[in-house]
Amino acid sequence: MGEKIEVQERILSRNEAIAKENRQLFESRNLFVFNVMSSPGAGKTTFLVETIKRLRNKYRVGVVEGDVASRVDAERISQTGVPVVQVNTGGACHLDALMIKKAVTHLPLDELDVLIIENVGNLVCPAEWNLGEHLKVVLLSVPEGDDKPVKYPQMFAAADILLLTKVDLLPYFDFRIEEVEKVVKGLNPQAKILKISSVTYEGYGEWLNELEARIKEVGR
Amino acid sequence: MGEKIEVQERILSRNEAIAKENRQLFESRNLFVFNVMSSPGAGKTTFLVETIKRLRNKYRVGVVEGDVASRVDAERISQTGVPVVQVNTGGACHLDALMIKKAVTHLPLDELDVLIIENVGNLVCPAEWNLGEHLKVVLLSVPEGDDKPVKYPQMFAAADILLLTKVDLLPYFDFRIEEVEKVVKGLNPQAKILKISSVTYEGYGEWLNELEARIKEVGR
Repeated sequence: MGEKIEVQERILSRNEAIAKENRQLFESRNLFVFNVMSSPGAGKTTFLVETIKRLRNKYRVGVVEGDVASRVDAERISQTGVPVVQVNTGGACHLDALMIKKAVTHLPLDELDVLIIENVGNLVCPAEWNLGEHLKVVLLSVPEGDDKPVKYPQMFAAADILLLTKVDLLPYFDFRIEEVEKVVKGLNPQAKILKISSVTYEGYGEWLNELEARIKEVGR
Repeated sequence: MGEKIEVQERILSRNEAIAKENRQLFESRNLFVFNVMSSPGAGKTTFLVETIKRLRNKYRVGVVEGDVASRVDAERISQTGVPVVQVNTGGACHLDALMIKKAVTHLPLDELDVLIIENVGNLVCPAEWNLGEHLKVVLLSVPEGDDKPVKYPQMFAAADILLLTKVDLLPYFDFRIEEVEKVVKGLNPQAKILKISSVTYEGYGEWLNELEARIKEVGR
């Protein structure tokens, strides 16, 4: 497997270089970019639709939508009225910086303040692929179970913000929030942990405040 | 990306060769092997604990437990009393045939009838990695949403059996079973689709009957 590791390292270092170029492009356009990751079915697209509805009064938003196949999510996002580009990875389990570099040429970057990247539903692969984003957000939904940070540590170590989603379902599941917080803080002491529900809208105020603080940090 | 694809193909074809060796080993031991795949949190481990409880009266069962990190699942499985080997992939998003070849040297194969492989929680990567198994089972849980077969077609095309899990939660979710059945049958007309709940135990009888039919097909 030595050959595989060597090629993988070469590809990852190329990815880092392109991610840096992406970041320079984003900064030159005063664009704040965040990357949303999770397992399939954690609620990324619903969360993004609700986030866009609340952001677009203040910020001009665009979206890059990553999926292995289909345009299902891009169609849902485009119903909010914001520009969206679909990237189909054709089998790959994550977006990479080159896919983003190409995708953003199809967006009116000069007319945007915030770019959201919805990554492929996957709790493993996207963790090590920087895209040039300012912020990495990971979603963990209550039905997935509280053991996920122990089992997929790279993702939870990489994310700046952990959003516990579908918290309206807490009464139906044996999900120990304190356990998740303890493990995630151990992996990543800086991580911010928030709770959210796209049914009751609990937590959206706090999430939007946090997001806006991050947007302001990079100078918009 | 040509280099990556070329190396990937070489690695996949090596994997196929080792998978064939594994299959020969399994056949020589009269061992029936099935590979269980799903997103993180679809309920694989709970499902396997319940399956093992029902199988072990009739068959001697062993388990290979695949995870990116941790021994959480192996510990849960070993409480059933069956032999279990943990494989930590250390970042890789799937098991491969070589990992299985090595792992099974730690199991008393001559004393087993059925070997269960629990793959890494991932709806993308494990699909194209044969392990030498007789049967591929994919779990899709109700909370993940009914759009998953459209968005992750490779996995649903590869699986022999689709188990819809957590069906006790159907009243709380807008999950169209007919839609899933239609898409999966389109991807894979031979696929068998079953519904199951590890809370109410609905569907376990049918699943065990189906599994036993497959075990008998290979001659045990």
